[in-house]
Amino acid sequence: MKHTSASPIREEDIGSWAIETDVAIVGFGAAGACAAIEAADTGADVQVFELASAGGGSTAMSSAEIYMGGNGGTAVQRSCGYNDSSDNMRAFLNTAFGASSDPDKVDAYVDGCAAHYDWLSSMGVPFKHTELKDRAIMALTDDCLLYTGSEAAWPFNLAAEPVPRGHNIQVEGDNGGPLLVRILTEQVSARERVSVHCDARVLTLVVSEAGAVVGLIVRIDMQELAVRARGGVVLCAGGFCMNEAMVRRYAPMFAEGLTPIGNPGDTGTGILMGIGAGAGTVNMHECFVTLPFYPPASLTYGIFINDKGQRFINEDVYHGRVAHACLAQQRSVSNRVYLIADVEAYGEYESISFLQAPVVGTGETIEELEAEIDLPEGTLVATLTRYNADAEAGEDKLFHKSRQWLRRLEPPLVALDCTIGRGSFYPFFTLGGLDTLPTGEVLTPERKSIPGLYAAGRTAAGVPRTAAGYASGMSVGDATFSGRMAGRSAAASIHC
Amino acid sequence: MKHTSASPIREEDIGSWAIETDVAIVGFGAAGACAAIEAADTGADVQVFELASAGGGSTAMSSAEIYMGGNGGTAVQRSCGYNDSSDNMRAFLNTAFGASSDPDKVDAYVDGCAAHYDWLSSMGVPFKHTELKDRAIMALTDDCLLYTGSEAAWPFNLAAEPVPRGHNIQVEGDNGGPLLVRILTEQVSARERVSVHCDARVLTLVVSEAGAVVGLIVRIDMQELAVRARGGVVLCAGGFCMNEAMVRRYAPMFAEGLTPIGNPGDTGTGILMGIGAGAGTVNMHECFVTLPFYPPASLTYGIFINDKGQRFINEDVYHGRVAHACLAQQRSVSNRVYLIADVEAYGEYESISFLQAPVVGTGETIEELEAEIDLPEGTLVATLTRYNADAEAGEDKLFHKSRQWLRRLEPPLVALDCTIGRGSFYPFFTLGGLDTLPTGEVLTPERKSIPGLYAAGRTAAGVPRTAAGYASGMSVGDATFSGRMAGRSAAASIHC
Repeated sequence: MKHTSASPIREEDIGSWAIETDVAIVGFGAAGACAAIEAADTGADVQVFELASAGGGSTAMSSAEIYMGGNGGTAVQRSCGYNDSSDNMRAFLNTAFGASSDPDKVDAYVDGCAAHYDWLSSMGVPFKHTELKDRAIMALTDDCLLYTGSEAAWPFNLAAEPVPRGHNIQVEGDNGGPLLVRILTEQVSARERVSVHCDARVLTLVVSEAGAVVGLIVRIDMQELAVRARGGVVLCAGGFCMNEAMVRRYAPMFAEGLTPIGNPGDTGTGILMGIGAGAGTVNMHECFVTLPFYPPASLTYGIFINDKGQRFINEDVYHGRVAHACLAQQRSVSNRVYLIADVEAYGEYESISFLQAPVVGTGETIEELEAEIDLPEGTLVATLTRYNADAEAGEDKLFHKSRQWLRRLEPPLVALDCTIGRGSFYPFFTLGGLDTLPTGEVLTPERKSIPGLYAAGRTAAGVPRTAAGYASGMSVGDATFSGRMAGRSAAASIHC
Repeated sequence: MKHTSASPIREEDIGSWAIETDVAIVGFGAAGACAAIEAADTGADVQVFELASAGGGSTAMSSAEIYMGGNGGTAVQRSCGYNDSSDNMRAFLNTAFGASSDPDKVDAYVDGCAAHYDWLSSMGVPFKHTELKDRAIMALTDDCLLYTGSEAAWPFNLAAEPVPRGHNIQVEGDNGGPLLVRILTEQVSARERVSVHCDARVLTLVVSEAGAVVGLIVRIDMQELAVRARGGVVLCAGGFCMNEAMVRRYAPMFAEGLTPIGNPGDTGTGILMGIGAGAGTVNMHECFVTLPFYPPASLTYGIFINDKGQRFINEDVYHGRVAHACLAQQRSVSNRVYLIADVEAYGEYESISFLQAPVVGTGETIEELEAEIDLPEGTLVATLTRYNADAEAGEDKLFHKSRQWLRRLEPPLVALDCTIGRGSFYPFFTLGGLDTLPTGEVLTPERKSIPGLYAAGRTAAGVPRTAAGYASGMSVGDATFSGRMAGRSAAASIHC
């Protein structure tokens, strides 16, 4: 057979079905596992096909924080004294994603969040009823609740009451991903209705004459097998950050100088299969991107400037929002971006940072640093004079960094070069994909459901749409939640 | 028959063909007209279907400047004393579109430009061998050559030798579009091989079992007719700026507060038909956008600032690049954007501007203006102090506005509010569409040509990819050039 991901096979060209099942799932990461569990629990027989030799996908490589709240709060939020209304969570998410947001998806996620927490708990995912108050990228203790986004920072704190929604799984160290994946895998194994095939490359979909997806072709042990899926196929095959050509074509602003993070299977084949079956795509140009400038949290006392010496962001926001702003500077007004810190803020940078930004200037005076990094004369002096006066007054009148992180920056000072391509670590992954309903149904460009086709996780354009509004835990939250919805929809469709 | 744009009809479902031709063209704007002429001149019979009651499309509503150069210069460029090498033009375009650029398309356009000028001349399009030296959005005289982009401004002047490439058609007033369309229409009428149908709505494409495009369905006078196109279909149906739902879905950053410019048929149906036949799309999130702050050209002596009082662009660039920067400010660091001018620069604003930006502050002193527009105290003072010192020294050390437009700004001063949604005119149209080869062949998401399908003009993602690098004349240049390429390819395919 001759086919590519985006060229589906016609049903009438299938000689015989090697496997028949209710629901076929492409990809065994967190989305695929949750789809399998939910489909089985809805009464369907399920076959899961995973390209790699084991499941877990990109979730296994992540911290696996899970972003949840609303409905008065999850059990953990309530135990820690937070009342998080659904309206409050919705207001935050709508502010976070703005014009890019899919309001139906946000509503479904907000409405379903607390129940999703309960479901994860029922699966055996452990959450300790404690809060971690550090400004951290991930929890290294087994504490649960922490701010993982910009909720407490301007302008989000004007739009919604700040509440922490990152739920760290109860495990020491940065080991949430492996633990979550192990628990989900065990739950899948415990379900007799589910069969998992690893080292199984799904090649393309099978479509009926009417345009419905009725199965797929998978290559296992050098054999191409036709799989019939009575209830449909769920695409949970990740994003496309590992496909350099696709990134260059669809998200060109992320194609140079950044580092894709994900698993090697994030090559976009799930998205291409969907397109081949008639799906529309949205948000393909957007990526999550970050610049892990904390830890040490003390660097939040520093300021980001461009090569005009201008500040451009309140530095107490989420690291991904800072990265997004740094990229925006470099795409429009500026060629260089620096993080300026004093000795105390610089602190443990060399020993504990992931940032990899080189020190490109130091100064016993502001003028000296300004000259060393080739800023136009007087620019850094003007910016720091203003910033220090504001810090002293306890109010950042320009960018609204919270008082907590305001402190005069006095020489000696150091400049870290955060320009793309000059050493700094700018990891990214894609946030665009198939357009879907909250049910997981995949939509055509005219927003009609394609019968038999579902997508979840990063194969779909999900809740998070831009790094500017992202919070850690949104992708694993979205993957597990959307996987469940898609698995349930596919299973339920059999009885229609 | 039941169908939507993106749901093609299968060939076997066609009872009989009402019309049979070599090449069918969807849309009779500049791209469609040029495709028709070129296809006919390649020996093909052509049927053109236009939704409106007459041809012309968005080109008829435009100034119809045409962006051309390279190859040592067009006849006009050479007469005006400019030698414009292809490498020079290529360097400019690659700088202009950066990561978003399609280098193959840029190469084809640059290589073909001078010959395209000759072809337009041979069609009867008149170009006077004169240059207009004004800083203008369009020529109101019948002079030809003018700078229509940012060629002479930083940073483009570092990447390529500045050369004017905007070719205004020889006609008084802003009447290039109607004249160009009349000439092209007459050329089409003169060709017996071409039949044009107006008030003819193409509903969807017809595809063979193998996936080739073999025709289309058109509704004329309440009848749905199947049209067989032996050489293929050329989609020249414009962009999607008039389709609010598509703009919101694909280019959400342009969905609020901006004004679509184009013809009412720019609803994206050509793009949807292509997707339905298996095409990939690129650059869907990008639009041309502008803020027509000149005329009066004197406002270029002013400065743009955000609500931190910061400048962010050299004001002597093309108006579209300024608009792009203003949008970037509002999407990231800032909520407001102002144009600050002194009395002399403000000059004829009230009588001749298209900007519609309201005056929201005036000041006999800088401090007074600063307070009136609620800028944090000292910010505008600092920015103007710096700017005025740089102006006096004859060098804009921060943003590199050229010396020609540098002058101290002294009170009394005026502030024009250029924030989106507060009165300013921000026209936009889409720059995304079907992925095509320079030949006009439409590509799948895996970049394989779809047999029998071609696209040109704004239905395809063409040479211009972002307002940040745009120059007036690029869309009409691209439409006429890509239309010709596509028409020729479709016609030539018959003899293969």
